Amino acid sequence: MADKIKVTVWNEFRHEKTNDAVKKLYPDGMHMVIGKALKAAGDMDVRYATLDEPEHGLTEKVVNDTDVMLWWGHMAHHEVSDEIVKRVQKKVLEGMGLIVLHSGHFSKIFRTMLGTNCSLKWREMAEKERLWNLEPGHPITEGIGEYIELPNTEMYGERFDIPTPDKLIFVSWFEGGEVFRSGCVWERGHGRIFYFRPGHETYPIFHNKEVQKVLVNAVRWAKPRIMKEDICPNTQPLEKIEPKHVDFGKAGILQSS
Amino acid sequence: MADKIKVTVWNEFRHEKTNDAVKKLYPDGMHMVIGKALKAAGDMDVRYATLDEPEHGLTEKVVNDTDVMLWWGHMAHHEVSDEIVKRVQKKVLEGMGLIVLHSGHFSKIFRTMLGTNCSLKWREMAEKERLWNLEPGHPITEGIGEYIELPNTEMYGERFDIPTPDKLIFVSWFEGGEVFRSGCVWERGHGRIFYFRPGHETYPIFHNKEVQKVLVNAVRWAKPRIMKEDICPNTQPLEKIEPKHVDFGKAGILQSS
Amino acid sequence: MADKIKVTVWNEFRHEKTNDAVKKLYPDGMHMVIGKALKAAGDMDVRYATLDEPEHGLTEKVVNDTDVMLWWGHMAHHEVSDEIVKRVQKKVLEGMGLIVLHSGHFSKIFRTMLGTNCSLKWREMAEKERLWNLEPGHPITEGIGEYIELPNTEMYGERFDIPTPDKLIFVSWFEGGEVFRSGCVWERGHGRIFYFRPGHETYPIFHNKEVQKVLVNAVRWAKPRIMKEDICPNTQPLEKIEPKHVDFGKAGILQSS
Amino acid sequence: MADKIKVTVWNEFRHEKTNDAVKKLYPDGMHMVIGKALKAAGDMDVRYATLDEPEHGLTEKVVNDTDVMLWWGHMAHHEVSDEIVKRVQKKVLEGMGLIVLHSGHFSKIFRTMLGTNCSLKWREMAEKERLWNLEPGHPITEGIGEYIELPNTEMYGERFDIPTPDKLIFVSWFEGGEVFRSGCVWERGHGRIFYFRPGHETYPIFHNKEVQKVLVNAVRWAKPRIMKEDICPNTQPLEKIEPKHVDFGKAGILQSS
Repeated sequence: MADKIKVTVWNEFRHEKTNDAVKKLYPDGMHMVIGKALKAAGDMDVRYATLDEPEHGLTEKVVNDTDVMLWWGHMAHHEVSDEIVKRVQKKVLEGMGLIVLHSGHFSKIFRTMLGTNCSLKWREMAEKERLWNLEPGHPITEGIGEYIELPNTEMYGERFDIPTPDKLIFVSWFEGGEVFRSGCVWERGHGRIFYFRPGHETYPIFHNKEVQKVLVNAVRWAKPRIMKEDICPNTQPLEKIEPKHVDFGKAGILQSS
Repeated sequence: MADKIKVTVWNEFRHEKTNDAVKKLYPDGMHMVIGKALKAAGDMDVRYATLDEPEHGLTEKVVNDTDVMLWWGHMAHHEVSDEIVKRVQKKVLEGMGLIVLHSGHFSKIFRTMLGTNCSLKWREMAEKERLWNLEPGHPITEGIGEYIELPNTEMYGERFDIPTPDKLIFVSWFEGGEVFRSGCVWERGHGRIFYFRPGHETYPIFHNKEVQKVLVNAVRWAKPRIMKEDICPNTQPLEKIEPKHVDFGKAGILQSS
Repeated sequence: MADKIKVTVWNEFRHEKTNDAVKKLYPDGMHMVIGKALKAAGDMDVRYATLDEPEHGLTEKVVNDTDVMLWWGHMAHHEVSDEIVKRVQKKVLEGMGLIVLHSGHFSKIFRTMLGTNCSLKWREMAEKERLWNLEPGHPITEGIGEYIELPNTEMYGERFDIPTPDKLIFVSWFEGGEVFRSGCVWERGHGRIFYFRPGHETYPIFHNKEVQKVLVNAVRWAKPRIMKEDICPNTQPLEKIEPKHVDFGKAGILQSS
Repeated sequence: MADKIKVTVWNEFRHEKTNDAVKKLYPDGMHMVIGKALKAAGDMDVRYATLDEPEHGLTEKVVNDTDVMLWWGHMAHHEVSDEIVKRVQKKVLEGMGLIVLHSGHFSKIFRTMLGTNCSLKWREMAEKERLWNLEPGHPITEGIGEYIELPNTEMYGERFDIPTPDKLIFVSWFEGGEVFRSGCVWERGHGRIFYFRPGHETYPIFHNKEVQKVLVNAVRWAKPRIMKEDICPNTQPLEKIEPKHVDFGKAGILQSS
């Protein structure tokens, strides 16, 4: 039997403590609802980590024991330490999957992985969203029909400042007149990244069965295919190099990062 | 008449001071040889900036007055301040062009823009390199034939840890048996990025007329097409949104970066 | 002074002859309205070609004298001869620009260039469309704001069966609830291709100033950067090849296309 | 237990009958050696089809019962009927995998899928080739090290006239001084395409264990994730469309392909 996928659901876990509407929807935090849905898939081991734990719950031990990490953050992106962000980035480049949710678009880890600003338009009017499925053959949309409809969402509108995705999975239509690239995938290093737009804290998005299905699919898709640290080796030639009669000096060694 | 392109050539400028072989090739620094070639093109204003100047020569004033920046660094990447890197990244995302040369693959600015490790294999044996031109229709290869041949180079070999380039312009063949993606372009934000492999300090690479031609072409290609700061605006609907009878709370404001 | 861009506007030119509503909007054909807008840009020479002319107006002479071709077709795609399609494809691969409009998504030339089915959803209810500009720095959107709004259009909805575009320029929002990748660019061979969705014959789309602006921009963007026929040459080695003591036979010559 | 992958190995099967050197290497045809290697993987059912059979062995029944098709052709590309090419293309767009080998770069099916000329440089001098593995995390390179070395090959050199691959898997180094994009993947419709360069008929390439490993991996990677025919449906609105007071005519129905 195949080993289970080791998933770490990271949540900022602040709104749930301070906003009554959010508390009502997610009394134990959004991460617990997401984690429960992932566990129900049967092929995943799920652990949780949150901002206010030591090292944000993302110790070397935890990160090194994670196959796929999910990330939800919003009001406290700036409180995430740069050191932890580098630790997670390093692991993604080595092969770990990363799934960034909703307002995580502005998280340090997402912006660090992509190199862009990741800005967008937004509006909170509980409006309708319809996520169109552009890639019915992609593993992330397995079991999803032509679209997912969400009756009440925060709106995110283009221009979304991201590098062109390797594949555009979902595009959203909003009642108020905007569109958004709501499901995007990239590869960075040996790792896979999926951004998924829905997930506003004041609506029961993560209780939605189709949203849960997408997350289960995404974890399966993002699991490591290899785990490998890339270094900068000085290497011997494979072919004979003709002797050179040039006067050149040895340069310094490349600085390690 | 069109305004001239405002170019800033940034150079670490250390090897030229400490290594006799490099000093002989570039007595005033590599940046001066590069800059002279760019000036000769006639449509560029060139200024210089180096690591050991205050703010590495990249003050707000200089960065804001730059259309295209070239970047050469090697032995002192870690001495470049994070603040200056963020300043340059912000400008690239707003539209400035960035041309990263040779060992600049491991610079903070390049790794920050791409989000990857940018590691590779390397070897110094003065071996022959042939850069094959895969995109004869691309502006960067205007006037360049099927390939550029360099008699003596440092070798860089795959795997080069970069995001898949938007377009692969040059692939190198090395005498010792390796290959390398030596000319790559990406867009990030509104800015264009070109990585160009040749440029080792102990060989007269930047005196080579074809290398100079590529740099002139690249500056013209990378010049800003727009200059625009992207923010995260709260925005009014364009269409009527049906009244929602839902009990939802207002979430906090997105944190600015 | 730079030479003018040589543009050929190809139009099926059937609806305008048989449908009174279309005739009223475009008495001389859509191509004439498009061509007039292009001529007004000042840097283009415009000629026309239509389905019912000999060789559909696309003789060797005309095609070889064209820098950028625009293509509108709908009800008679199947009447376009395969030979002419091959002629146009060959020229695009050599460097000619191709701009495919609206129902041209199902034209032989578009499907031949892309290799896919190019199917989509559609509906004629004169609904509102808003084309969001995802790439404000791209030459095709020069002078275009955040979006273009069209009060009455035919709807095209995803999934649009196309290869992932090199760059996604416009995404449309439709009143009836769908989205569409309405502005897409690709490079094939040395030529550039732009697909632009608006242009239904029963609405005055090509009289719209913003649509005209996009077409002018697109012609400028798509003009040839090189014109080059690629062949399959048998070529001599650039490096010495060690004598091989193998018993191998000569294979047949590659078949020309 | 999962169903086996249904593989059809298509071979032109002409050189093996007329060239003694080829006959010696592949007495029963290259397809039989390829098929034997695939069968040994244990999870594949393999059938064969060749040019000189009725319908080239690719009847509707066979094509519809195929998950992944491999294609080797060279001297008789022009003898493959356009009707069969369309049949295979349709199936790829619906989800079937397609693996094109070596001189298949100039086959009708490959050029039809990609829309380009697929030209390249070539030379037969039995020279050494080293295929560098750029994507050690990709399923196609599972079990493959940093490179594959082939002592005697026909050379293929850039520029290879193909659309930019979704992912570049292998880049070849040749003894004679050229480079080549030897492993490339694309998605078209719902199907996956892999081009793999090695496979010249006068060398024992398909007897090589690493080449066989790549083919086994590629079949697994290319197997259908969905099987779906895309059509162009007229569709009802999902949202209420405000009544339009415009005078517009009904356009004709889109022509089916």
